Amino acid sequence: MTNLKQVDAYLETHLQESLTELGDLCAQPSVAAQAWGMEETAQTVAQMLQKRGFAVEIKETGGFPVVLAERQGRGDKTLLFYNHYDVQPVEPLDLWDSPPFEPEQRDGKMYARGVSDDKGHFVSRLFAIDALLKQNEELPCNVKFILEGEEEIGSIHLPDFVKAHTEELAADACVWEFGGVDYRGVPMQYLGLRGICYVELSVETANSDVHSGLGGSIFPNAAWRLVWALNALKDEDERIRIPGFYDPIIPPTERDKELLAALPPVAEEYKERYGLDHFLKGLTGGLELRTAAVFEPTCTICGLTSGYQGKGSKTVLPAKASAKVDFRLVPEQTPSEVVQQLRAHLDAEGFSDVEIEFLGGGPAGRTDPDDPFVELVVDTAKEVYGIPMELDPMGGGSGPNHAFVHYLNLPVVTAGIGHPGSNAHAPNENIRLDLYLKGAQHIARILTAFGEE
Amino acid sequence: MTNLKQVDAYLETHLQESLTELGDLCAQPSVAAQAWGMEETAQTVAQMLQKRGFAVEIKETGGFPVVLAERQGRGDKTLLFYNHYDVQPVEPLDLWDSPPFEPEQRDGKMYARGVSDDKGHFVSRLFAIDALLKQNEELPCNVKFILEGEEEIGSIHLPDFVKAHTEELAADACVWEFGGVDYRGVPMQYLGLRGICYVELSVETANSDVHSGLGGSIFPNAAWRLVWALNALKDEDERIRIPGFYDPIIPPTERDKELLAALPPVAEEYKERYGLDHFLKGLTGGLELRTAAVFEPTCTICGLTSGYQGKGSKTVLPAKASAKVDFRLVPEQTPSEVVQQLRAHLDAEGFSDVEIEFLGGGPAGRTDPDDPFVELVVDTAKEVYGIPMELDPMGGGSGPNHAFVHYLNLPVVTAGIGHPGSNAHAPNENIRLDLYLKGAQHIARILTAFGEE
Repeated sequence: MTNLKQVDAYLETHLQESLTELGDLCAQPSVAAQAWGMEETAQTVAQMLQKRGFAVEIKETGGFPVVLAERQGRGDKTLLFYNHYDVQPVEPLDLWDSPPFEPEQRDGKMYARGVSDDKGHFVSRLFAIDALLKQNEELPCNVKFILEGEEEIGSIHLPDFVKAHTEELAADACVWEFGGVDYRGVPMQYLGLRGICYVELSVETANSDVHSGLGGSIFPNAAWRLVWALNALKDEDERIRIPGFYDPIIPPTERDKELLAALPPVAEEYKERYGLDHFLKGLTGGLELRTAAVFEPTCTICGLTSGYQGKGSKTVLPAKASAKVDFRLVPEQTPSEVVQQLRAHLDAEGFSDVEIEFLGGGPAGRTDPDDPFVELVVDTAKEVYGIPMELDPMGGGSGPNHAFVHYLNLPVVTAGIGHPGSNAHAPNENIRLDLYLKGAQHIARILTAFGEE
Repeated sequence: MTNLKQVDAYLETHLQESLTELGDLCAQPSVAAQAWGMEETAQTVAQMLQKRGFAVEIKETGGFPVVLAERQGRGDKTLLFYNHYDVQPVEPLDLWDSPPFEPEQRDGKMYARGVSDDKGHFVSRLFAIDALLKQNEELPCNVKFILEGEEEIGSIHLPDFVKAHTEELAADACVWEFGGVDYRGVPMQYLGLRGICYVELSVETANSDVHSGLGGSIFPNAAWRLVWALNALKDEDERIRIPGFYDPIIPPTERDKELLAALPPVAEEYKERYGLDHFLKGLTGGLELRTAAVFEPTCTICGLTSGYQGKGSKTVLPAKASAKVDFRLVPEQTPSEVVQQLRAHLDAEGFSDVEIEFLGGGPAGRTDPDDPFVELVVDTAKEVYGIPMELDPMGGGSGPNHAFVHYLNLPVVTAGIGHPGSNAHAPNENIRLDLYLKGAQHIARILTAFGEE
């Protein structure tokens, strides 16, 4: 049996060692969008698992490789951890207070690109395993890891990979790549993720940019074509104009609404954190805001680019324009259907000149809030955080959890080190050291309870 | 009296010398939009004029300085040359075949940023003056130069400068900064320029970019705000939606239409040069295309920027977005009125969050096609080009000629070295060496005829 006091003591004593290991991993860039450092980081991650006695394989996917690892434990049960070793791009670089690939601790935090999303989560799990292995030669249960390198670019190859490796990935439950506390410090259990369909729209109207005095009245302008095509996608009232887009949607259940209603208000926190003066669609807070935030699909322009973007004026008529557009999907929307609907809609609206490149995605995935493994994770959290974990039936973000839910038939839970100010996907990404420690303590308890229950 | 054969002989013999001087000037960056090398280039230009015996002053304007120069000649008449020493930005740099500030001659052309627009025009005029001074101690007429440093950023301070210096700039006629041949090799006389109103529209919706999974359904998105605001400015049928925008417009006269009708077709040439498959508004060519190209105002998006613009995907909800927008104006529209109308329209359409920064502009300016000085310039061109100059009542581009027409009461003509493939405002800007020589020969004849008529 596991002595959790000794586990906690180990974790408290060895915190800086683990952070050093995390720092080394964060110092290694692994920006999937820019194909930067991916193979090297997969190797590093594999070695970190091998060091803990895991049998490790680096598997080709057609994109960046997947790292699979397995270590037998005392019981029959198998817990699968899903993590990713890729990180978001670092731009805009000038907004970082310390270089993104030079991890730095200050004010009880550690800053680096990927330190929270998702390298910190991965290393905190290894840290928990170290503490358990210090006590016993064997872990309380069988443990598997799957780490992918394409999470930040839409997990392009992962669903097919999972589908093709159901035997290697067979398990009884899955712990997701993230987790953490909300702005009150309450540990949250996120039981679902929206799907995503990420596309780049581009249009080209001439073989080169033209002097705007020559062509302004008579030549097609790529930037205008793009603006009008985007305008055709969503109204100013936020209604997405693509025919059929809303048709497959299953509304939230009564149980979903009950769970959402029990969650604390977020309106003031969001307004203050992001400097907002209002929310969309007339929302002001409460259950309506909570519901809209996660149970409604989106059409988000993530980037726009065309023509001259420097200082001052340049009188040019752009030949090319493009936009990055991210659709967040709710059950039962699928990315392939959205791309088809988008193509048909652009064509119908006269924008067959606008090309669509699919940059990745997958449908939404959800876990039953009343699954016994959810209960185990919630109960073990209380010892660590001193307060009960609260259930959020659906997160706003995306990830390939649908493959784990539907192909592997696993309950998927969140347990991790995150906090609302972690700046994931933004400059000055960070973790709080106290939550890093708590996250490892929680993981050690999950493994123990799961193996010994 | 001037022996034009000797003038021509001088110009033919000293061509490379003049090109060397031009190359030195082009090697000096002077990008007004980026405030790059402006003071130094004003000094260089001043020295080039002093070397020719001009009395030169560098005058402050509140922006980049104006260079004024004057040299007495034999007659009473005074010819004023308007040029500018600033150039367009060089981006996108990767599309240049040779570095933009390392002038290079190849295939009968010379390549550099500004070699055509406008340094080549300026130096070719000095070259003509050199040839005349080789013959006589005095020039045939008084010659004045005004060179500004803000032409490529909308001549922000020039109109006020001209208004405040009417005495120093007093003259009998003005030769504009550009001129040249069309795609057939026919020298063209452009008798007007559209006005311009260049603005940057920007919107900010949060204090930082946000993860699109968190905010996509509920947070305002700067990129969407910008797209919708732009969409409110112009319909897909190219109709500008700003109330009152078209009200002040004076349609082309019968004489304008007669001159336009006499011009050659441009449709096929434009399609081939720029790889276009159609023109806007259902235009196919002929007088309709010619008229639309210059006698209709425009609203051109010159640039768009927001959020992530790198490779692949980044799931970010942008806090900022901006667009560069260039309105070409026809008589009697004014930039100040357009900015007022634009502000009122954006407010009325619900876009008071979209800020407008005025980056420069001025109204249109036109010269009477039947002015005697126009006749002189047209006649002297025939000797050089072997074919008559054709009259174009209005060019599509813009410049501060309205100040010369209205404040100085001058006829303003074009005579220069340009050709349709010069790539002004684009990568690989160039001049044809044969046209550089012809341009200088024409200027020498204009000065001679003007002084000796």
